[in-house]
Amino acid sequence: MSQETPMQPFAVDIDLASGAMADPDTVITRRASDMRGYYADADALERIIGEQHDPVHYEVFEKDIPEAPGHLRICVSKLYPGTVGRECFMTKGHYHTVSGTAEIYLCLQGRGFMLMKTKQGACLAERMVRNGMVYVPPHWAHRSVNTGEEPLVSFCVYPGEAGHNYGDIVEQGFPRRVYLQNGEEVIA
Amino acid sequence: MSQETPMQPFAVDIDLASGAMADPDTVITRRASDMRGYYADADALERIIGEQHDPVHYEVFEKDIPEAPGHLRICVSKLYPGTVGRECFMTKGHYHTVSGTAEIYLCLQGRGFMLMKTKQGACLAERMVRNGMVYVPPHWAHRSVNTGEEPLVSFCVYPGEAGHNYGDIVEQGFPRRVYLQNGEEVIA
Repeated sequence: MSQETPMQPFAVDIDLASGAMADPDTVITRRASDMRGYYADADALERIIGEQHDPVHYEVFEKDIPEAPGHLRICVSKLYPGTVGRECFMTKGHYHTVSGTAEIYLCLQGRGFMLMKTKQGACLAERMVRNGMVYVPPHWAHRSVNTGEEPLVSFCVYPGEAGHNYGDIVEQGFPRRVYLQNGEEVIA
Repeated sequence: MSQETPMQPFAVDIDLASGAMADPDTVITRRASDMRGYYADADALERIIGEQHDPVHYEVFEKDIPEAPGHLRICVSKLYPGTVGRECFMTKGHYHTVSGTAEIYLCLQGRGFMLMKTKQGACLAERMVRNGMVYVPPHWAHRSVNTGEEPLVSFCVYPGEAGHNYGDIVEQGFPRRVYLQNGEEVIA
């Protein structure tokens, strides 16, 4: 083992009802304007940006943990509910920079899907709902989609070295989109 | 990235109130008799084994996930409440075979401590309680200790390659033990 002094243990409070993290070290805020290029109906997104004063779209609450092999990065992801046209609010989605690394999403609140794709063209959706955990295996790009009426909140864990790679997503999107049509979830 | 077909995503239900995992692939059961050598009062442990017909001491519920770099192994750990003499029920504790790997414990139920030590002689305890997450950094051996009256249940995540190494623990234990004295938690 290393001769250096090991890092000190720590604890963090995460409310299992709401997903609220106490004292995050970093909060990443994505507003509607950060999502330009991601939704099918660009005009509908511009209306949201204009009429709702560029509202917060999703937030990621993080603790400072080394971005290094052997460590585990944790965060709480909070995606607000709504639609752009009929398309459900979603995160940008990402591959990992170290592509062969997995991620765990333990859903604490809300309802939606984890939409995943591979560079070989596979695309799958797993249900996200409180009490459900989704395993995103290595090599799958992944985005959360909120189909419900409350925030979609997940506790996430990924290897320290994983990194984020937005890769082809802004240009190519995912092969499938998630809509609400007459109150029904449609993946098309 | 690999030219092989990526592993398929999957979901698993984990009850955030009780910690119950639906359809675990593996259940590891440790009985009182498996804990011989770990508690200060060996006679008290033998009485539990004899009088209570070798009761289950703790259980670990797992999903089959590759024990390989880039993957994340998950489990639910359920440690029953009680004392051996005055010493609180605990898990054996382990290092990781790949010592430089961390572990996340998200406590879902119960009350106790995560007791941790390094080979350099450091020893620390972090509170475990519902809504609390403990970060066990690389190189720290760790054991759960239940000081409450209900099972201590945690959702755990660790790197796929980590492995378990019981190392010096059965011979040397941890530098500190956790007792209940007149209903008070004592770490001594």
